[in-house]
Amino acid sequence: MIDGHGDDLFRFPGIVKHNFSSNIFSRVDHTALLAHLAACGDDILHYPEPRAYSLESMFAAEAGIDARHLLVTNGATECIYIIAQMMRDKRAAIVAPAFREYEDACALNHLIVSWHESLAEAMKVSPDLVWICNPANPTGHVTPREHILDIVSAYPSTLFVVDQAYADYTLLPVLTPQQSVERGNVIMLSSLTKRFAVPGLRIGYAIGCVDRLAEYLKPWSVSSVAIAAAKYLVEHKADYPIDAAMLHNQGLMLSARFQQLGIAVSPTDCNFILCRLPHGTAADLKEWLVSNYGILIRDASNFHGLSPAHFRVAAQTIPENELLIKAVSQWIGL
Amino acid sequence: MIDGHGDDLFRFPGIVKHNFSSNIFSRVDHTALLAHLAACGDDILHYPEPRAYSLESMFAAEAGIDARHLLVTNGATECIYIIAQMMRDKRAAIVAPAFREYEDACALNHLIVSWHESLAEAMKVSPDLVWICNPANPTGHVTPREHILDIVSAYPSTLFVVDQAYADYTLLPVLTPQQSVERGNVIMLSSLTKRFAVPGLRIGYAIGCVDRLAEYLKPWSVSSVAIAAAKYLVEHKADYPIDAAMLHNQGLMLSARFQQLGIAVSPTDCNFILCRLPHGTAADLKEWLVSNYGILIRDASNFHGLSPAHFRVAAQTIPENELLIKAVSQWIGL
Repeated sequence: MIDGHGDDLFRFPGIVKHNFSSNIFSRVDHTALLAHLAACGDDILHYPEPRAYSLESMFAAEAGIDARHLLVTNGATECIYIIAQMMRDKRAAIVAPAFREYEDACALNHLIVSWHESLAEAMKVSPDLVWICNPANPTGHVTPREHILDIVSAYPSTLFVVDQAYADYTLLPVLTPQQSVERGNVIMLSSLTKRFAVPGLRIGYAIGCVDRLAEYLKPWSVSSVAIAAAKYLVEHKADYPIDAAMLHNQGLMLSARFQQLGIAVSPTDCNFILCRLPHGTAADLKEWLVSNYGILIRDASNFHGLSPAHFRVAAQTIPENELLIKAVSQWIGL
Repeated sequence: MIDGHGDDLFRFPGIVKHNFSSNIFSRVDHTALLAHLAACGDDILHYPEPRAYSLESMFAAEAGIDARHLLVTNGATECIYIIAQMMRDKRAAIVAPAFREYEDACALNHLIVSWHESLAEAMKVSPDLVWICNPANPTGHVTPREHILDIVSAYPSTLFVVDQAYADYTLLPVLTPQQSVERGNVIMLSSLTKRFAVPGLRIGYAIGCVDRLAEYLKPWSVSSVAIAAAKYLVEHKADYPIDAAMLHNQGLMLSARFQQLGIAVSPTDCNFILCRLPHGTAADLKEWLVSNYGILIRDASNFHGLSPAHFRVAAQTIPENELLIKAVSQWIGL
């Protein structure tokens, strides 16, 4: 899906001051990273590694696994499309609502798709492939790790894609790289996007049974700049702390305050929350917030199973969160 | 194909001083570009446009066509794979030898492939899709533009992909954007890679009948950094002159000197030349040149129809070209 995602900031040049629309805490200073990239001039002059081998080794070492179990892609999204390509014509189950690209990648590759409220429900249709986003997007809900592992073990001929792109924003346990590798039927997706607030870079990776996936790679999909940036970020991870507890608390605070306004909120284990307006549409709210406050939210109406009243926000700084509540409160009262 | 391309510089960290292995003149100073990118810090913090609309408009304006006829991709290579995906299960003809990715993209998408020495020969098998690299890689040969246009007009139900990635290195006429758009059955591929010596960035684009292609796009495949860099380069094109005449002359000079050494050289219209050793293998020559002179060449043995004796070089600075001749001469005499 090209249009309809969050963080469509590019549509509002110079207007948005507070971006709640992607599941990221965006107040990160990338001055040092940019200075590093400026010093990597020669990288631009040469082709990147056709497959980002050196970065794979680095990620694998950090994860404590063998590099052959890891595949770097142009964001986790490229990996989603490659997985669907590998599974063409098979049957896929999606635990919904979920990141829209699972569905689109399946449609492009002629998979038969069904949607389910839970992993247990999904297994009833004997799918070849299961997509589970954990923590879930857009709800922030975390399915218990042991439950996922039990099901993965019980269905060895099913391929489970466990998208952990939001894992750094929850305090609950998620699959470890080792657990993903030990099973032969898991592909765990990760990304630098949320961890380091670098959605503009496009660096994702898969851990687990990635051997066949590599056959679908095309050369050079990850740029030299992205590779250099990713290496810098991994080496300087300590300079990029994430206060998941604080952000989760801010998510809970937003939830409580929204509920006081009559907005229904899904329980979240993360920094972001899915909301349903008591009246009106998320599209109208979004437009009004941009125009009046320079605030960008995610119209969540195009997630499978959701309604025009659904929107999603990710907690930002405390003053920004307060401003959001004030603004939404004003709109609700209009 | 992941391994086996030119510019495998990453395999020789710190060893290569003279890179003849990709079809690029690589002595370009990107200091100003890198400084610009360092000043675009916020771009990294946000998702790129899911499809690089603003860059498409910019390229289209430069080409004098409507933006709906232009599609930006993660290098021309991504576009090659998308085209093959769109043409799945059909019959493709490749004018060979040619860039290896045509063949690999077709194989991945179950096209039936045939190879031909010329465009006229290719048409005899009534293909659904024809790949023609013009100027051709690895030979540097240019098929006359009028000949291509005649055939394109004569076969309106065939899709012609005309890869003009090397167009800035020839003085002969190639398809214009307008000519590509006027026909309903042409996709012309271009790239910033060769024009600005930025293979590390990954920016390519297609001009022509790209409507259906867009259905195969996945979001965010072109990074924010690549978009910002591409805009800078287009705006500062005048700062990046290419002396195609000088480089072609240097290519001819290399050809003449190699022929004196008993090396067979294909006629070239560009800066790069395809060579066949009188004895020994390109793989051995490549290894020897790296070890003894820090010179990297392209082992061309894995192009369809070529032999282990084939290699390819792109002319660089005059002193570097002289060094290459000296080194190859020494190896030949061993």
